[in-house]
Amino acid sequence: MKAPKVTFFHAPQSRSRGTLALLEELGVDYDLHLIDLKAGTQRDPAYLALNPLGKVPAVRHEGAMVTEQPAVMMYLADLYPEKGLAPAIGDPLRGPYLRWMVFYGSCFEPALVDHSMQREPAPHATSPYGTWQEVLDAIVTQLTPGPWLLGERFTAADVLWGTALHWTTMFKLVPELPPVREYIDRVRARPAMQRAEAKDAQFLASQA
Amino acid sequence: MKAPKVTFFHAPQSRSRGTLALLEELGVDYDLHLIDLKAGTQRDPAYLALNPLGKVPAVRHEGAMVTEQPAVMMYLADLYPEKGLAPAIGDPLRGPYLRWMVFYGSCFEPALVDHSMQREPAPHATSPYGTWQEVLDAIVTQLTPGPWLLGERFTAADVLWGTALHWTTMFKLVPELPPVREYIDRVRARPAMQRAEAKDAQFLASQA
Repeated sequence: MKAPKVTFFHAPQSRSRGTLALLEELGVDYDLHLIDLKAGTQRDPAYLALNPLGKVPAVRHEGAMVTEQPAVMMYLADLYPEKGLAPAIGDPLRGPYLRWMVFYGSCFEPALVDHSMQREPAPHATSPYGTWQEVLDAIVTQLTPGPWLLGERFTAADVLWGTALHWTTMFKLVPELPPVREYIDRVRARPAMQRAEAKDAQFLASQA
Repeated sequence: MKAPKVTFFHAPQSRSRGTLALLEELGVDYDLHLIDLKAGTQRDPAYLALNPLGKVPAVRHEGAMVTEQPAVMMYLADLYPEKGLAPAIGDPLRGPYLRWMVFYGSCFEPALVDHSMQREPAPHATSPYGTWQEVLDAIVTQLTPGPWLLGERFTAADVLWGTALHWTTMFKLVPELPPVREYIDRVRARPAMQRAEAKDAQFLASQA
């Protein structure tokens, strides 16, 4: 049985690039709905009715909306188990996989926002992440054994983290330590990741 | 086949209360590892080796550590499918379930930290959540049909949100609008939730 197609809400050159790359890695067909951030179409009432925060990525599948990048990616990777990009429930990697998917939105992004705005983190008992350095150290420690975030197995978490570390090092927010640099290069060398970059450039050009 | 027991790292009267309540809802046996926040045992080197950010909740299962409350709760709810607290992969509620689990850590917590510190959110293009009001509105809209977050079905997401809205309204961070107040009361009326509150009071007393 073939599942009905997913509708993917995507803005070129935005945080939804990771989900675009995951769809390339999964090699599945989808309906594309492009959002134009420059024109502000993420604030169109029709989009806000689907996703009240007006963020990308989002997907609609069988009538249900899924938002928040880690949720979208976990949803898609589980939807196509034959592609092997999500450790199945019961697999010893399932827990670490969920941990690092959620860590991205719950710790890394809030830490990154404070760091990029040069704000102090909240007091330790309140902060969801501790300090920027603690977050960086946790990431570097996790990446050091390699080749992938969870070790020998490439998963959707690598699509998320490879993409995020690529743009955050480019913007000099995350330092290019060797384990980080080598990891980004390994992820970006994958044919699906390269296809995603090329497609995204086309999508951006179509909005010019 | 019975899965090996989970070890649950918990601090009384902390954010890990939600996971304690989920374990009561699941009705499963676990090994308890109490953290004493007043004594600072969350910063013990032995715990930091397991969870570098020193946060609770965390669980260890079959040698793997799972951290970040939404990840811990998704992991546990999927581990015991016969309890019915997670919509299965393929269920139409699976996407909304993942969305609201991740929304908690990616949007609600960062918004709550800024709001409680009376900080402005990051600029719209950077912020993971937009504005505090947008986050509140999204939650109230989602809770209004009821009785549960996802409609007719009670899930682990209600354990997370019922617990979180309970303490955030208590601390006057979230306003007690009727749909929020009624939802909290419905969640807290469940016998498992009451057992969790009683247990947590005992755990706290044991650390006095």
